Amino acid sequence: MNQVIELIKTDVKKEKPAANALGFGKHFTDYMFVMDYNQEDGWHHPRITPYAPLVLDPSVMVFHYGQAIFEGLKAYRTKDGRVLLFRPEKNVARLNLSCQRMSIPQIDEEIVLDAIKQLVEIEKDWIPNEEGTSLYIRPFIIATEPSLGVHPSREYKLMVILSPVGSYYSDQLKPVRIYVEDEYVRAVPGGVGFVKTSGNYAASLKAQEKAELLGYDQVLWLDGVERKYIEEVGSMNIFFKINGEVVTPKLNGSILGGITRDSVIELLKHWNIPVKEAKISIDEINQAFQKGELEEVFGTGTAAVISPVGELKWKDTTMNISKGNNGNTLANRIYEEITSIQLGKAEDPFNWTIEIK
Amino acid sequence: MNQVIELIKTDVKKEKPAANALGFGKHFTDYMFVMDYNQEDGWHHPRITPYAPLVLDPSVMVFHYGQAIFEGLKAYRTKDGRVLLFRPEKNVARLNLSCQRMSIPQIDEEIVLDAIKQLVEIEKDWIPNEEGTSLYIRPFIIATEPSLGVHPSREYKLMVILSPVGSYYSDQLKPVRIYVEDEYVRAVPGGVGFVKTSGNYAASLKAQEKAELLGYDQVLWLDGVERKYIEEVGSMNIFFKINGEVVTPKLNGSILGGITRDSVIELLKHWNIPVKEAKISIDEINQAFQKGELEEVFGTGTAAVISPVGELKWKDTTMNISKGNNGNTLANRIYEEITSIQLGKAEDPFNWTIEIK
Repeated sequence: MNQVIELIKTDVKKEKPAANALGFGKHFTDYMFVMDYNQEDGWHHPRITPYAPLVLDPSVMVFHYGQAIFEGLKAYRTKDGRVLLFRPEKNVARLNLSCQRMSIPQIDEEIVLDAIKQLVEIEKDWIPNEEGTSLYIRPFIIATEPSLGVHPSREYKLMVILSPVGSYYSDQLKPVRIYVEDEYVRAVPGGVGFVKTSGNYAASLKAQEKAELLGYDQVLWLDGVERKYIEEVGSMNIFFKINGEVVTPKLNGSILGGITRDSVIELLKHWNIPVKEAKISIDEINQAFQKGELEEVFGTGTAAVISPVGELKWKDTTMNISKGNNGNTLANRIYEEITSIQLGKAEDPFNWTIEIK
Repeated sequence: MNQVIELIKTDVKKEKPAANALGFGKHFTDYMFVMDYNQEDGWHHPRITPYAPLVLDPSVMVFHYGQAIFEGLKAYRTKDGRVLLFRPEKNVARLNLSCQRMSIPQIDEEIVLDAIKQLVEIEKDWIPNEEGTSLYIRPFIIATEPSLGVHPSREYKLMVILSPVGSYYSDQLKPVRIYVEDEYVRAVPGGVGFVKTSGNYAASLKAQEKAELLGYDQVLWLDGVERKYIEEVGSMNIFFKINGEVVTPKLNGSILGGITRDSVIELLKHWNIPVKEAKISIDEINQAFQKGELEEVFGTGTAAVISPVGELKWKDTTMNISKGNNGNTLANRIYEEITSIQLGKAEDPFNWTIEIK
């Protein structure tokens, strides 16, 4: 596709929030990217335009039948002022995987990647400088045909919005307490759990509320069929270090294939630390814990990069994991390495980062 | 709640579409109902207002995390010009069930029922007169907080829009051909299949597309765990008549509890026709078919009321069901009775209809 991205300029600029008031996904920049789809023209009119509300008929399909998918990635500012993206081509490829499952027409990955780069370039003054902050990039697609018939929408909007976000950790990695959910189910093979569609998140809220009521930070999801195999945590993938070996649930059609997950596996292989993807039951994890072999548990995701798990609560069993750790963990080492690559502080032997110029 | 519904009038009226150009969910009336939710005021400012587009920030949660639920019911015009609703209190109660599962604050059922009645009363000229036509009523709730954090939204809009719809059948009940889906899964216990949330519909589109490519009208969903128990058809519930007895899948946490389904069960009991709700495997249905005992199969839903199934395709087996039928079926008798009650042509011993005055 040789479509040129049009730039519609604005002189109205918002005031940028203070670094300590950023939070997550609350502030948005001055511009956004938009591209439309209809049956005659396909995906057309890619444009960077002033950030503005959408005007949508109450009957548009996204409100009723939920065809909505998204991605999430970050732009980082290096100490010497360069701007880096972390594996953005992976997000764009996954967006197309989500399109495919949700009956949304395929996008041209090159033009969307180009759109992200151009938008970040224009908005680079919005990337905060402080340790741990970044510019969160949210590409998404919604169904915009005004019709109540149940069928794939014949109109869509692809948009990219940007939000400066604060540091996930205030000081050091903070272990989370996790509740192993055995009532609610997130996804099942044959369903849509392996793609980033809005309904997966709506369906997960109830279990998250329950976990918080019980005093936990997040939920660990078990498989929807046998209710014993580990799938993922909240909106992160999960890793276990058992007797020196690292294991993470194998992608099975109901687990989201995280890009940080993939990066951690590559990094561990590069370090010659044994790592495998396998079907893991919560029972196996408990047995490893009881034998004193469960050395570490950590989640991986774009928001926190690495999130150590301090406690797993499964029915009547409480597994306290990081008791003896003094910060000298594999989770810490991975976190340091990946964030150093993201921030241009370390070599990038994997060619994960792309500089925006 | 003693909230008064405000009426914001308009003099601008649209031209009403011709009866033969109605279709489904393509035309909308002059007014809509809107009510807002925020944490300070709860559900507030119920109002009937001119039908108009929504203006929403690109970050509102419905686009990203899919908190969206809906209902569907119809207003009918009787021969003598009265306007009837069919069991609307059931739809409003189910809307609250959907709220509960999807972490949306509970609504006041009385005020929403009142809103539906007032809106239909104001728009009663939009109810078409022709046989089989009606005014489709679509209540829905969407999450409108502008935030990318994954948590239940703190702002919502409840809306009701109206659409005059054409006859589902042009002449007589038309049997549908159904493909028994064994690759994709609609829902699983512990998930959200028992409520009307947008994500269920988005997740079903791929299988529907596949069935159509294979030459079938709709999909029959099997359970997501053992992949052998019958759940529902497309967006209808399903009934089987075997050896004089009627059976429909028991509500199990992944099947939507249809209001037409409930009405059919009540009606059959009233007629002293044996009916039961049970766990039914596709294998049992095939065995009944092979023994010549599968007399009828039909779907139930708001759109078509009753939809006879002429053929079930399961792997290599084709079950031709209605071959010997000449219209003198139980499906026909139920269809006639329920539509006659809906249109005020028959007695309503169940008090299913409510007249709008």
